[in-house]
Amino acid sequence: MRTQLVVQKFGGSSVANPERIKRVAQRVVDTKRKQTHVVVVVSALGDTTDELIELASQISQEPPERELDMLMATGEQVSVALLAMAIHELGEDAVSFTGAQVGILTDSTHTKAKIVDISAHHRIEQELLKGRIVIVAGFQGVNLNQDITTLGRGGSDLTAVALAKALKADVCEIFTDVEGIYTADPRIVPQARKLSAISYDEMLEMASLGAQVMQARSIFVAKRFDIPMHVRSSFSLREGTMIQKTAKSMEDIVVSGVTLQRDEAKVTIRDVPDRPGMAAEIFKELAAKGINVDMIVQNVSREGSTDVSFTVVKSDLPATLRVSRSVAHRIGAGEVTTDEEVAKLSIVGIGMRSHSGVAAKMFEAMAHERVNIEMISTSEIKISCVIRKIHAERAVRAVHRAFGLNHAPMRRKHT
Amino acid sequence: MRTQLVVQKFGGSSVANPERIKRVAQRVVDTKRKQTHVVVVVSALGDTTDELIELASQISQEPPERELDMLMATGEQVSVALLAMAIHELGEDAVSFTGAQVGILTDSTHTKAKIVDISAHHRIEQELLKGRIVIVAGFQGVNLNQDITTLGRGGSDLTAVALAKALKADVCEIFTDVEGIYTADPRIVPQARKLSAISYDEMLEMASLGAQVMQARSIFVAKRFDIPMHVRSSFSLREGTMIQKTAKSMEDIVVSGVTLQRDEAKVTIRDVPDRPGMAAEIFKELAAKGINVDMIVQNVSREGSTDVSFTVVKSDLPATLRVSRSVAHRIGAGEVTTDEEVAKLSIVGIGMRSHSGVAAKMFEAMAHERVNIEMISTSEIKISCVIRKIHAERAVRAVHRAFGLNHAPMRRKHT
Repeated sequence: MRTQLVVQKFGGSSVANPERIKRVAQRVVDTKRKQTHVVVVVSALGDTTDELIELASQISQEPPERELDMLMATGEQVSVALLAMAIHELGEDAVSFTGAQVGILTDSTHTKAKIVDISAHHRIEQELLKGRIVIVAGFQGVNLNQDITTLGRGGSDLTAVALAKALKADVCEIFTDVEGIYTADPRIVPQARKLSAISYDEMLEMASLGAQVMQARSIFVAKRFDIPMHVRSSFSLREGTMIQKTAKSMEDIVVSGVTLQRDEAKVTIRDVPDRPGMAAEIFKELAAKGINVDMIVQNVSREGSTDVSFTVVKSDLPATLRVSRSVAHRIGAGEVTTDEEVAKLSIVGIGMRSHSGVAAKMFEAMAHERVNIEMISTSEIKISCVIRKIHAERAVRAVHRAFGLNHAPMRRKHT
Repeated sequence: MRTQLVVQKFGGSSVANPERIKRVAQRVVDTKRKQTHVVVVVSALGDTTDELIELASQISQEPPERELDMLMATGEQVSVALLAMAIHELGEDAVSFTGAQVGILTDSTHTKAKIVDISAHHRIEQELLKGRIVIVAGFQGVNLNQDITTLGRGGSDLTAVALAKALKADVCEIFTDVEGIYTADPRIVPQARKLSAISYDEMLEMASLGAQVMQARSIFVAKRFDIPMHVRSSFSLREGTMIQKTAKSMEDIVVSGVTLQRDEAKVTIRDVPDRPGMAAEIFKELAAKGINVDMIVQNVSREGSTDVSFTVVKSDLPATLRVSRSVAHRIGAGEVTTDEEVAKLSIVGIGMRSHSGVAAKMFEAMAHERVNIEMISTSEIKISCVIRKIHAERAVRAVHRAFGLNHAPMRRKHT
């Protein structure tokens, strides 16, 4: 049997202080001693990145992004050095690298760069062959000019997945403060169960719907290169949730989970003239300002005009309102109203594709709780509804129950 | 007239907080606006390096030095990014680099590496030609394997001098918290005067004798490549002290300054057999343990044996005693005694070479104050005496006065 190669990623809270760094070191060493090559990716200690940004803000309100990246990248460099020391202390040999040193090549979009290639993975392989544990700074890379870049939110996950791909790792383990992916947020639905496996597509929907365990972009890369991911807890030895291609045993599962997002607001533009190009006009302008619109619903036309509603994250609301009002005025639409007291409830599951009646069952569960649905949007593997925020948690529990997620059958195994 | 190129180095206390960083930025920008290309070298903010070492010590008592360098190098990376931001805020374009990015190539002696070459200075030149201010992290480099190294004490000065050499800079300015080099420590001799110029050789003696403005190693490099240095204050616009080759106007000056070291201890090995090779035996062994011996005095032989005395820095005293006692026992010498209540007073000056009576005048000044001299050692440009520590400051004032350093003649100009 060939030696396994595992990429393990630990987030900032897992390495927030020397005690936790030592715990992570022990975990890594335990893995290594099971005849496994280990490559570790770490984020900056605890709140370091925020502290560095705060330091920069004392000097400049709009620091050049190249310099911000130069500054922020020090956070992970501290983590990798300290973790290497902690591993040495346990009697194993470890060597740390910055993103630049292992050639994590990115484009030049500072503060949210995209990984283009990993050009020096042979350096990692050499160290592994010497029996060493390799530690790589997450979240950072360099462009072709050797300028330091950072990868933006979820960047360390992305580093881990990209390394797993370049090194042909057997699995990429994402350590976090939860035990895995649940059928719903356990704080809302106490009966929620941990999934032992989930498909990339489902996880993509879950991620973008607010299950905050992983960012969508790294799951996208994992799916593209078929890299098995294992989301598990830093604080327990239990298996977490495997993210992988559709497994046979998944076929009969209709709905994998229920998610809830409460950080969006609904915007409605009244009386938009019912002429071709009106919707394009609105959303083109919003896109130009970098505003990501989520759900869009346009009611059927009444007397030559229609209402257009859409949702955006609340932090984009002021900019959205400015743009919407200006466009509304230009195209002769009516007033623009906003509603922040909404929530978006979604169900996700690849089983939906082949099962009819899923939407009906969802709506019925909510109707039974007298929860009114204000907007609906569907995709291949998800159905989302905008409802009143005050009803949100009750609705999640009702839908979770309706799809039989409260029971705990032995339904999924790792393939 | 061609555009000047200046390398400016700012130490940790000059960039200890955002306010000071802004002040340094203003100073750099002022220089730039005088039609000058500016390359800035900065150390880590205030006590950052010590804080990082303290963090490491919470994880490991003996961290691998490669990882310690990885950790410490983040300190300067933070400084360069913040200074670049502060300069942008003042409307000038600045770009920051790590040691690795400008190819500061060193050997692999982690935590005290030596600079071998600066392989990417063209990158700096390109940026200067674009009208940018270039900021380089001091104290750090990379070895041929691209591992990060640090240069040890005085490392940022060394970075500045090495860059000045590689870029053929017109001058290398070392900004510090004093106004320049003085004829004596002004805290001891209130009448001490700032020298407007000093030779490399004199400065080398002053540096190794405890004038703590600059480390000897960077002066040595400056001398070797004939790079004019200007030691001046971060907090004032006044000219400081030029360090350069011997200037004509210096010829008639006998003594440039009086220095005092109080961090050494005297060790005496009694009754060393007066046979060839005995001294070699002792000092070979001390050198093998990495102990730097400073002054050595051997009295004339009495009845086939002699006393050997030498000085070492106090931190080396325990190791020195272990080694000395073991060697003394082996070669049949007597007891080993130590004395920590000593101080070393020295006069430095290239004028000594051609003037007779300098030593006599020094000894006479001390005799007049009833200060007993316990050891004497001389070189081409310095005379050092070990005396009782309690008499040290009085002796410094007496010698300073005896050589006419209290007066303030217009004696030296920048060449």
